[in-house]
Amino acid sequence: MSIFQENLESTLQKAQEAFVTINTFSIAKRVAFMRAVADEIEALGPELIDTARRESNLPEARLTGEKGRTIFQWRSYAEAVEKGYSLDASIDTANPTRTPPKPDIRKTNVALGPAAVFGASNFPFAFSTAGGDTASAIAAGCPVIVKAHPGHPETSQLMADAITRGVEKSGFPKGTFSHIFCETNEEAQALVSHPVIKAVGFTGSNRGGLALVEIASKRHEPIPVFAEMGSINPVFLLPEKLNAAASELAKQYAGSLTLGVGQFCTNPGLVISEEGAALDQFIDTLEEEIVKALPAPMLNSGIAKGYKLSREKVVGQAGVNVLATAATQAEDGFGDATVATVSAVDFLINDTLQAEVFGPFALIIKCRNADEVLQAASKVHGQLTATLLATTGDIAQCQELVAVIQNKCGRIIFNNFPTGVEVCKSMHHGGPFPSSSNSQYTSVGADAIKRFTRPLSFQNWPDEFLPEELKNANPLGIWRNVDNELSKEAVSV
Amino acid sequence: MSIFQENLESTLQKAQEAFVTINTFSIAKRVAFMRAVADEIEALGPELIDTARRESNLPEARLTGEKGRTIFQWRSYAEAVEKGYSLDASIDTANPTRTPPKPDIRKTNVALGPAAVFGASNFPFAFSTAGGDTASAIAAGCPVIVKAHPGHPETSQLMADAITRGVEKSGFPKGTFSHIFCETNEEAQALVSHPVIKAVGFTGSNRGGLALVEIASKRHEPIPVFAEMGSINPVFLLPEKLNAAASELAKQYAGSLTLGVGQFCTNPGLVISEEGAALDQFIDTLEEEIVKALPAPMLNSGIAKGYKLSREKVVGQAGVNVLATAATQAEDGFGDATVATVSAVDFLINDTLQAEVFGPFALIIKCRNADEVLQAASKVHGQLTATLLATTGDIAQCQELVAVIQNKCGRIIFNNFPTGVEVCKSMHHGGPFPSSSNSQYTSVGADAIKRFTRPLSFQNWPDEFLPEELKNANPLGIWRNVDNELSKEAVSV
Repeated sequence: MSIFQENLESTLQKAQEAFVTINTFSIAKRVAFMRAVADEIEALGPELIDTARRESNLPEARLTGEKGRTIFQWRSYAEAVEKGYSLDASIDTANPTRTPPKPDIRKTNVALGPAAVFGASNFPFAFSTAGGDTASAIAAGCPVIVKAHPGHPETSQLMADAITRGVEKSGFPKGTFSHIFCETNEEAQALVSHPVIKAVGFTGSNRGGLALVEIASKRHEPIPVFAEMGSINPVFLLPEKLNAAASELAKQYAGSLTLGVGQFCTNPGLVISEEGAALDQFIDTLEEEIVKALPAPMLNSGIAKGYKLSREKVVGQAGVNVLATAATQAEDGFGDATVATVSAVDFLINDTLQAEVFGPFALIIKCRNADEVLQAASKVHGQLTATLLATTGDIAQCQELVAVIQNKCGRIIFNNFPTGVEVCKSMHHGGPFPSSSNSQYTSVGADAIKRFTRPLSFQNWPDEFLPEELKNANPLGIWRNVDNELSKEAVSV
Repeated sequence: MSIFQENLESTLQKAQEAFVTINTFSIAKRVAFMRAVADEIEALGPELIDTARRESNLPEARLTGEKGRTIFQWRSYAEAVEKGYSLDASIDTANPTRTPPKPDIRKTNVALGPAAVFGASNFPFAFSTAGGDTASAIAAGCPVIVKAHPGHPETSQLMADAITRGVEKSGFPKGTFSHIFCETNEEAQALVSHPVIKAVGFTGSNRGGLALVEIASKRHEPIPVFAEMGSINPVFLLPEKLNAAASELAKQYAGSLTLGVGQFCTNPGLVISEEGAALDQFIDTLEEEIVKALPAPMLNSGIAKGYKLSREKVVGQAGVNVLATAATQAEDGFGDATVATVSAVDFLINDTLQAEVFGPFALIIKCRNADEVLQAASKVHGQLTATLLATTGDIAQCQELVAVIQNKCGRIIFNNFPTGVEVCKSMHHGGPFPSSSNSQYTSVGADAIKRFTRPLSFQNWPDEFLPEELKNANPLGIWRNVDNELSKEAVSV
């Protein structure tokens, strides 16, 4: 056994022991732990922002905002646990006089077991060591083993230390949270393959996500992998709206496309529209905006190289014409905004045009008519988001198109932009394959907790030994489904 | 293309078209359709029971009960849809004055797409053509293609005709429901591999379920397979209870073990207990009961052969002793109850002892002490159910054991038996691998509907175009999570 393997074995052993222990803890204790972690992250001083700036090239304002978002995730998921939303508690009382007698059946969501979390490069706080996957797995009652992202190791360590202080202050066992560094893919594979691990959360590239899905499917006991793998997030320009506001839309669109040097999984990298004077105007304004856009440093040199390579591959495809590139030449490691166009006819026969170009790149699909728009929409792969820039009249006119688009995405947006993923109960951040490996779960918002749970029913179980959320008296005061009606009342039996 | 493939292509094309159409229908129309199907099944005369008796060897009373259960599934799932439970509707209203402005986000569950359903041999009504998988996929808004079970083709056709009449009477498109017969595994594989299919429901053997999981994972677009693959459903005899009522428990247990010739996925095929006088008494009484049990015809000759072969394999393992077999010799095609014993030491080193023997067979694990009971529990594979025959004093004494058992099963039972799976909201029929391929979803009870849905968020979407469950006015009058509180109120914006 290598030192890595020995350490992994011992880490996972401790996680398994912690799993047993923390599942004897009350909901209130778990909630207090999550709030303690939020407090510890909040207390991290300028060192956190400075370290992350150095490691990720992200600007201070963005990082400050992301820190707030990360804290909010821990607190709002704690609130969801406290309110019982992640438990889906349900009670069907007995009916002993029925033939056959109806037993008492009660159901709650329990933790799956130790979870492995793989963070993303582009959100060093909110989707990394202390990010949403970690917060939601902890909220579910799962110990977490984070594989630190190599792009921001010191940032990750600061966050890991904050969580560890939260663990200690809340009286949770050490194995509740571990932070490991993997040097090779084989080491990451050993983590996901280990029988102790019962679920995986991942945010990153298509290639990375699919590799984890494959490892998990080859285990003796397959486990769920919740991989959020990015997307090109089509934007549909519908005629009435486009006619009314082509230049304004182009400016707004350019802002969303170049935000954060395009380094978002919700970056709107595909525009689909009918040809005509309005689209020409949109394109003209967009061209001006792109030419003016200043290149900016990307997360790291590998990402900058990847941006150029994947952009080259797309613009090298048949029928693709580069419309505009930032006028200022990009220094090494910088990303320069680029927009290209292609006809719907070429788009429909070439899947390479749907490859994610991670950075400020967009491809505009020019359709000769509404039918080609519908065909292009039908051809689009599964997406995290789809955006309609439209009037209500457009929507009324395009019901078939809207239905096709809804089937392709996890979030559908009206006259707004997909960048900026609100952390709330109603957010779905996920979508049909290949945007995620499991379209049934979100990775943002309190429902993300449910990824790390499974239902467990109790039949005729004595009240004193039921989990608190299922006890007759409803000591948590939560909403429960009792005999098919939602209620906060105690159950009288 | 073979005739099968041509027909399949046309069937799936119609299913895809139906998917588009039925998703423009109202919830009320879907509910009415489900109730029409229930009525059609209810109206099926004695021919249904007679046909099923002939094809399955199941007795009339059992089939009459199963018919009622099947109708209840359609009606109770329709009610769950009507009440919005399967939609999980959620609304976060906008806050335009926040920095950055908070958009309006609303979420509901939408249908995954056309679903393939593979029925089981042992429930020709409730888990076959018109069974729970079909009812829940339809409830989700998915067209269904059922692969008819070859064990009861005429029964399946009667049920398929009833559903088809429901489709016609409710104004649903023909492609909403299709019923196909596959001659070979390759034909079934072609169904699951087809890009139109977006989910699979299956009830049956471990081998069959895993084969479907593998096919699905090799698709270009992987899809979820909800395979309920059976289980040996351990029964733990805890000391205080066993001492108080050994003979009585043995009689009850024998009744559950031999019910329906043991042909249930919840058949309690494993007993785990400490040795001693009380266990000896339990064994003595069980032996008497088993010897007296009359062999009965199994579902078909293949199942009877399979029972004998799998039983032979288990009783041929090192350390296994046959305790009792029915005294009356089993005719061809009959199943004779059999109980064997083995030491915990032998059990712990031999996974073959955990193979499902589909029929009235049980293996009793004799443990020398409480620690061996705990070790045996830890060794047990994932199960649909686990049963504790215990006093509350036993439970208080065995908290560590109870925690281990909870982690192994989908339903934990106190002084009751696992056979008889109540159709209700709180039922979880599923469990950790290998009892099911996805421990996060149930195949019985209204929550089974959610297997065939995925969340979809709407951002700033105009009220008039929102699905009815998300409209401001709440026209369905359902419970919704509005700004983090459950409510039936209209939303004022």
